Amino acid sequence: MLSALDLARRIESGELTPRAVVDMCAEAIEAREKDVRAFVVLDLDTAQRVADNARLVPLPLHGLPVAFKDIFDTFDLPTQYGSPIYTENRPRADATAVALTRRAGGIVIGKTVTTEFASLVPSVTRNPHNLDHTPGGSSSGSCAAVAAGMVPVAFGTQTAGSVIRPAAFCGVAGFKPSYRLLPLVGVKDVSWHLDTAGVFGVGVSDVAFVAAAVTGRDLRVDRVTTPAPRIALVRTHLWNEATAAMQNAIETAARCVEAAGAKVTDVKLPPILEEAHAAQYVIQDYETVLALAFEYDRHRELIDPRLRDALDTGAKISADDYDAARRTASRARQVLADTMADHDVILTPSAPGAAPHGFATTGNAMFNRLWTLMGAPCINVPGLSDGGLPLGMQVVGRFGRDRAALEAAWFLENAIRKTGT
Amino acid sequence: MLSALDLARRIESGELTPRAVVDMCAEAIEAREKDVRAFVVLDLDTAQRVADNARLVPLPLHGLPVAFKDIFDTFDLPTQYGSPIYTENRPRADATAVALTRRAGGIVIGKTVTTEFASLVPSVTRNPHNLDHTPGGSSSGSCAAVAAGMVPVAFGTQTAGSVIRPAAFCGVAGFKPSYRLLPLVGVKDVSWHLDTAGVFGVGVSDVAFVAAAVTGRDLRVDRVTTPAPRIALVRTHLWNEATAAMQNAIETAARCVEAAGAKVTDVKLPPILEEAHAAQYVIQDYETVLALAFEYDRHRELIDPRLRDALDTGAKISADDYDAARRTASRARQVLADTMADHDVILTPSAPGAAPHGFATTGNAMFNRLWTLMGAPCINVPGLSDGGLPLGMQVVGRFGRDRAALEAAWFLENAIRKTGT
Repeated sequence: MLSALDLARRIESGELTPRAVVDMCAEAIEAREKDVRAFVVLDLDTAQRVADNARLVPLPLHGLPVAFKDIFDTFDLPTQYGSPIYTENRPRADATAVALTRRAGGIVIGKTVTTEFASLVPSVTRNPHNLDHTPGGSSSGSCAAVAAGMVPVAFGTQTAGSVIRPAAFCGVAGFKPSYRLLPLVGVKDVSWHLDTAGVFGVGVSDVAFVAAAVTGRDLRVDRVTTPAPRIALVRTHLWNEATAAMQNAIETAARCVEAAGAKVTDVKLPPILEEAHAAQYVIQDYETVLALAFEYDRHRELIDPRLRDALDTGAKISADDYDAARRTASRARQVLADTMADHDVILTPSAPGAAPHGFATTGNAMFNRLWTLMGAPCINVPGLSDGGLPLGMQVVGRFGRDRAALEAAWFLENAIRKTGT
Repeated sequence: MLSALDLARRIESGELTPRAVVDMCAEAIEAREKDVRAFVVLDLDTAQRVADNARLVPLPLHGLPVAFKDIFDTFDLPTQYGSPIYTENRPRADATAVALTRRAGGIVIGKTVTTEFASLVPSVTRNPHNLDHTPGGSSSGSCAAVAAGMVPVAFGTQTAGSVIRPAAFCGVAGFKPSYRLLPLVGVKDVSWHLDTAGVFGVGVSDVAFVAAAVTGRDLRVDRVTTPAPRIALVRTHLWNEATAAMQNAIETAARCVEAAGAKVTDVKLPPILEEAHAAQYVIQDYETVLALAFEYDRHRELIDPRLRDALDTGAKISADDYDAARRTASRARQVLADTMADHDVILTPSAPGAAPHGFATTGNAMFNRLWTLMGAPCINVPGLSDGGLPLGMQVVGRFGRDRAALEAAWFLENAIRKTGT
């Protein structure tokens, strides 16, 4: 895999040219893409030309190839949202995250496979660790592209669990920042109280580096010694839904960070958080019906029957139920803040287990929905596995304290690496 | 002017056909548009054809012509966002509000003038009450089109004061619902924590009727006897910026509702609300710079110098200052909720006074910014005037209690009408 931070350092030192890095990606794509099928569209010619013309300027992402999930608008590449309704769609503008990536020196090399409108309907991408397994979704292509070493950085979005879950399944770092830390302008809406842009990279320091570069915020973790975090081990009411391997992985992770000096406390969430988990479904389903009103009314026959059924079900949710769900979410956010007053982060599974076999689903987002609704920063930390497939540990921070969350995730990643588990 | 509710009743009873209503609009447009300049694009031929083919079905907006501010995407009409960067832009989809309007039976007859990216840069529209005065902005065309009787319903958006202020200047009802009650999907982003879609109509019962039809929520006020509201008369720290005529209008309004049975209490806002007013500028300016990152980087020469200067100034706001402004807003929302515990709504000016002379500005949004940031439902209530130009009274409700806010505004509107002030 290609570490964004490592490549950036080597470009900065003159050891590598931007063109050489694009060519590394092109080689990996040549070798892996036919199996992994991560990309909807690639433009390596343009990327090579941009790389050749890139002057050495002090831009943080200078010369780094970046891929975007195909629900981010791009002015120079088609944007299809995973839907035949948008065949040949050519947006007039870049999404803000794309524009900021280019402004920071990144080179957009292609658009990655998204499930249809970032929904639960699976697409064609395969898990680079085992081609018979799903890579997860809905940011299927972005996480697979990073995991297959085809690109050092890719962006995705999460409405339920579409960044953290695929990152876990593909064994890469995924960072879903606090709600709206990364602008969503120019990204196809699915559920406006939930949709969150996120970043995939090889490790925690990579995603922190990229998020810092794009937002201009002090989020890098690689240049400091991170303090030992106070960690709440939270099993949630869904703990029994996790595989034994996942339960073991979380407990192993807890022992590793404790050995490295962190304080780990078992914390049981107040009942309102379980209610909030249920509320997430209501909010997402209600808003998605509205977000796709045009597509439903004008192009229903081009919507996958599974998504159409979900929209028909969502259309039955009343405004009162939706309002009640949002009030539950508001109260839960306050309770969660109180619960976390003495902890820097929560440690909890990123997914029920390793990537499921086959392509009937993209896996279950049950371990992600609550945190997305809470707007909390989440990081998938890779490093453990089950029968050759990665297992993901999720670090959940306090809203708006993304740096502390990334530091704790970095601490965990290093603790696992040192232990050599 | 054309009352949406009245026209809907007459269509329902068979007294008017949809085609006759479209033709009424066409006549008014023929008579007034050359002076008022409310529309960017009109498609009366299509509207007439749609009206001719409209079967009488129990849809709430059946046959009603509707106009949209030209920052709502429409799949069948160009959408330019008030910017030469988007000349000939043809979105692939309708914004959700447009799709829901059509689903409810409304007929989209055209797109109305917006200032450039809904900013403070004035455009070509004139105030129908006096062509030498601004209609306000940024939803300039939508409010002027309703005020000139060219259309019964028009949609706009408000980030600072872009619905309530022009409604006040043009003497129509404007309804800015609670944050995100009306979906923003497919509307050009300016500032995602502030942007709110709103509705213009002749009177309060019209905007309530349209909002109910589009959202499917129980928001109509015309079929019930509204209870006498408990009203907080809030002058805010900006009271001295209001003209004597506006101060008198608010005090007159207070006397009218008291005479009609409402309880009016003078309420002074806690200091955090003044801080929140200042925070609104920071949040808007910081987010607008990000929202327009693509346009700034790729088409700077096509951005009006006044907007460009504003973007350059906004780019200097630090992430820390922005985060602090958002924390201020959060605290202020809680304090406002506490302050309003014993009141149904606030009564306060919609603008500093009547529409300014000339077209150098679209007027000042100072009386709107705080309420937009608070996410509170706001209604401009017409009915008073100053030297032939309308004065607007603003009713501000509690977040999520849009129906109560509309009921109180309806109560105020009737109280003023009955008094014959």
